[in-house]
Amino acid sequence: MEGEERRRKKEKGGKGKQIDEAKQKFVLKTAKGTRDINSKQMMIREKVLSVIVSCFERHNAVTIDTPVFELKETLTGINGEEFKLIYNLKDENGEQLSLRYDLTVPFARYLAMNNITNIKRYHIGKVYRRDNPVMTRGRYREFCQCDFDIAGQYDPMIPDAECLRIVYEILRELDLGDFRIKVNDRRILDGMSAVCGVPDEKFCTICSTVDKLDKMPWEDVKSELINKKGLSEDVADQIGEYVSMQGGLDLAEKLLQDPKLSQNKQACAGLNDMKLLFVYLQCFKITDKVVFDLSLARGLDYYTGVIYEAVLCQTLQPEVPVAGDRAGVNAGSVGSVAGGGRYDGLVGQCDSKGRTVPCVGLSIGIERILCILEQKAKTSAEKIRTTKTQVLVASAQKNLLEQRLKLTNELWDAGIKAEVLYKKNPKLLTQLQHCEETGIPLVAILGEQEIQNGVVKLRNVATREEVDVSRDQVVEEIKRRIINL
Amino acid sequence: MEGEERRRKKEKGGKGKQIDEAKQKFVLKTAKGTRDINSKQMMIREKVLSVIVSCFERHNAVTIDTPVFELKETLTGINGEEFKLIYNLKDENGEQLSLRYDLTVPFARYLAMNNITNIKRYHIGKVYRRDNPVMTRGRYREFCQCDFDIAGQYDPMIPDAECLRIVYEILRELDLGDFRIKVNDRRILDGMSAVCGVPDEKFCTICSTVDKLDKMPWEDVKSELINKKGLSEDVADQIGEYVSMQGGLDLAEKLLQDPKLSQNKQACAGLNDMKLLFVYLQCFKITDKVVFDLSLARGLDYYTGVIYEAVLCQTLQPEVPVAGDRAGVNAGSVGSVAGGGRYDGLVGQCDSKGRTVPCVGLSIGIERILCILEQKAKTSAEKIRTTKTQVLVASAQKNLLEQRLKLTNELWDAGIKAEVLYKKNPKLLTQLQHCEETGIPLVAILGEQEIQNGVVKLRNVATREEVDVSRDQVVEEIKRRIINL
Repeated sequence: MEGEERRRKKEKGGKGKQIDEAKQKFVLKTAKGTRDINSKQMMIREKVLSVIVSCFERHNAVTIDTPVFELKETLTGINGEEFKLIYNLKDENGEQLSLRYDLTVPFARYLAMNNITNIKRYHIGKVYRRDNPVMTRGRYREFCQCDFDIAGQYDPMIPDAECLRIVYEILRELDLGDFRIKVNDRRILDGMSAVCGVPDEKFCTICSTVDKLDKMPWEDVKSELINKKGLSEDVADQIGEYVSMQGGLDLAEKLLQDPKLSQNKQACAGLNDMKLLFVYLQCFKITDKVVFDLSLARGLDYYTGVIYEAVLCQTLQPEVPVAGDRAGVNAGSVGSVAGGGRYDGLVGQCDSKGRTVPCVGLSIGIERILCILEQKAKTSAEKIRTTKTQVLVASAQKNLLEQRLKLTNELWDAGIKAEVLYKKNPKLLTQLQHCEETGIPLVAILGEQEIQNGVVKLRNVATREEVDVSRDQVVEEIKRRIINL
Repeated sequence: MEGEERRRKKEKGGKGKQIDEAKQKFVLKTAKGTRDINSKQMMIREKVLSVIVSCFERHNAVTIDTPVFELKETLTGINGEEFKLIYNLKDENGEQLSLRYDLTVPFARYLAMNNITNIKRYHIGKVYRRDNPVMTRGRYREFCQCDFDIAGQYDPMIPDAECLRIVYEILRELDLGDFRIKVNDRRILDGMSAVCGVPDEKFCTICSTVDKLDKMPWEDVKSELINKKGLSEDVADQIGEYVSMQGGLDLAEKLLQDPKLSQNKQACAGLNDMKLLFVYLQCFKITDKVVFDLSLARGLDYYTGVIYEAVLCQTLQPEVPVAGDRAGVNAGSVGSVAGGGRYDGLVGQCDSKGRTVPCVGLSIGIERILCILEQKAKTSAEKIRTTKTQVLVASAQKNLLEQRLKLTNELWDAGIKAEVLYKKNPKLLTQLQHCEETGIPLVAILGEQEIQNGVVKLRNVATREEVDVSRDQVVEEIKRRIINL
């Protein structure tokens, strides 16, 4: 059967030609939902990662790494139930292993296992979800997350505010256009839900419906709350009133006066912390980008305090949300490129003695950002160089390969990115064309005449200017020139 | 059963105390043969990777990335048979997937799939083998490989020589003590084997015995060849004569005159290329580190031409070799830290039309290198900083948190790595101690007196010198100072 299927595929692709069956041993493709990243995409990726890492380092984080797979019970144990999108490995040596689906659970495991009570760390790594891929929108089964977390017992809202500042700095520097960071608090959601009369057991499912408000009108959300989730119209309307509210410090103060919410202890704790958060955000000069939005609910159950999500204002593409995505990116929520929040209970769930370590953190979803930047690069006239070569060592006549290799070697010894074509006797024109095509700015040309005169000809590819430099001084001269290129 | 086992473990660890059963949900550990990498280890790792990447870029490579898992048939198909150390995933969506066990097979798949006929690329990534881990020697089931490969049809031995030069540059720069790069050629091994009278079907198994010569005396190897591999004593002795030979250009020339070898076409092709290789290695000034060694066989079957392996002279620890490890590191061969060779057939095995793309490449096995450097770091007096923080913004009195946050924010805006303690009212002593402990070189101290005078006190942590700087100019002054720190 499988062989037949392959043959059929080949006949389709083979345009009627006979193909030697023995040659094609298997179908050439990557696994569903995954992709190769080519050199151009890697250049963009590295630029983005360098912005993110610089920011994480500017905010004093160390970095760690954890294995790509964990014991299955570590992943399912922390969340209590099996996360259905997990990739499991075949049990071939007595261990049940699964690929990590985020970097937060391995982080909590790491803290508990090593008895670490305070750390500020970033972790950049790939995570895996057997989700419905949408490759054109940066939604993959293997994708990169950039996480920054602050673990430890500190005075309230200072680390939380720094996390928001970090999201702000990264989005500003990546130059993705205008953005907003929505914030809310799990305790405010809890309190609101309670005072509106939502039964405790329905809290999570109600939140996930409310969270759709950024891509559905209220009328549709309300209808889902009533018809699918079984709320009464009165309860739904009460919720509707709260979740339409957006603001800042002022809104927190106003809600602290709200006759219903002010009676709820949880809500008041959340609202007072929200006030404090905005005071610190003022110090960080980012209140113009941050919105206190009561409709923000997010998917993950482990949040205990402030939650946030960053959305780009330009790229609004509706899509179906998926639970369990801290960055909200794979979830495909509208333009969401970063997210996070406070999770004070997760480490305690891992620890044998239940010792808690309060944590707050963020995750940048770079695949979506890369998707946008790759599209930008395609439409831009600017050519992306995929190598950083500074000099080509070329020859003008035959039989100069060894001379070329020797000079190239001297350049490598001097730390210069130098290339030589792997041909014994390449034509000068071919060598110059190679520079034009790959963007190499400088050529060092060796010719019989030059060797007799003890010089090397240096050619500026852009201006086509040529100048003879003494062979003894050519490495120094090239060093001097590439600084200015 | 499982629950009971856990309880027993806890009783052991619990020192007689009663522990709440509900709290410990699972055993906290990483999967067998894997480990977390802490912040100190990450600092060393990043230094090593930066040396390697700089070298790869100096040699004009682009970089790509491929998924961590491939279709199982891609991994098994290329090698013809199932590689027994492969990690397989549970088939939950109709695809049989396996974790990659090296970066070479995915590279060959990438070239064939995208019809790429020439590229110079590096790839740094983790690979997976269900091997026998020896954690203390850097032998893991998840480990990082740094591969550099040159694909394309070029004039002979020029790219091959560059690969050796790259291994040389990296080992020199990593400062791991003296080293040697052994080279041989698959065709010379083939020819030698044939002229000594080894049956074709025994070639691979004979090679793997000969390859042990770097950790076993000839007598033991000979006995294995005769008793385990079934060679006659005469054949074994003939092999023994060849594989004891080491040299350079001279040895290649001598062997071209060898009455037996000179009659073998394969051997002559290999020896002539070896001569050419050494001519280019002379241009690259590395012949003092490269040894033509007829006992070098290496494990992998896909090599078609030159093969090489780098060994450190200092750290010689005998261990059992494992097939299928290009870097030879996980194989634990004596001090081997890099390896590679020419494989002209691999891409053709992937391609539906059998189109070949000649390739030569190398793999740096960094886990072993890191193991050595981590041990060095432990015995060294030098303290490793795990953060790069340049300034702590501190306060001398209470109620200055917002002032501290505002100044810190200005420093972040200026690109300075600045930290503030997450405490409303930290003691000055605590703040200064934090700097001493974490190696922060500069403190900006805000106090009531300073604020009244419109200044900030800058303190050099090492010299304890303090100077008042105008609040308006403090960011510029800090910028100026950190350049010199």
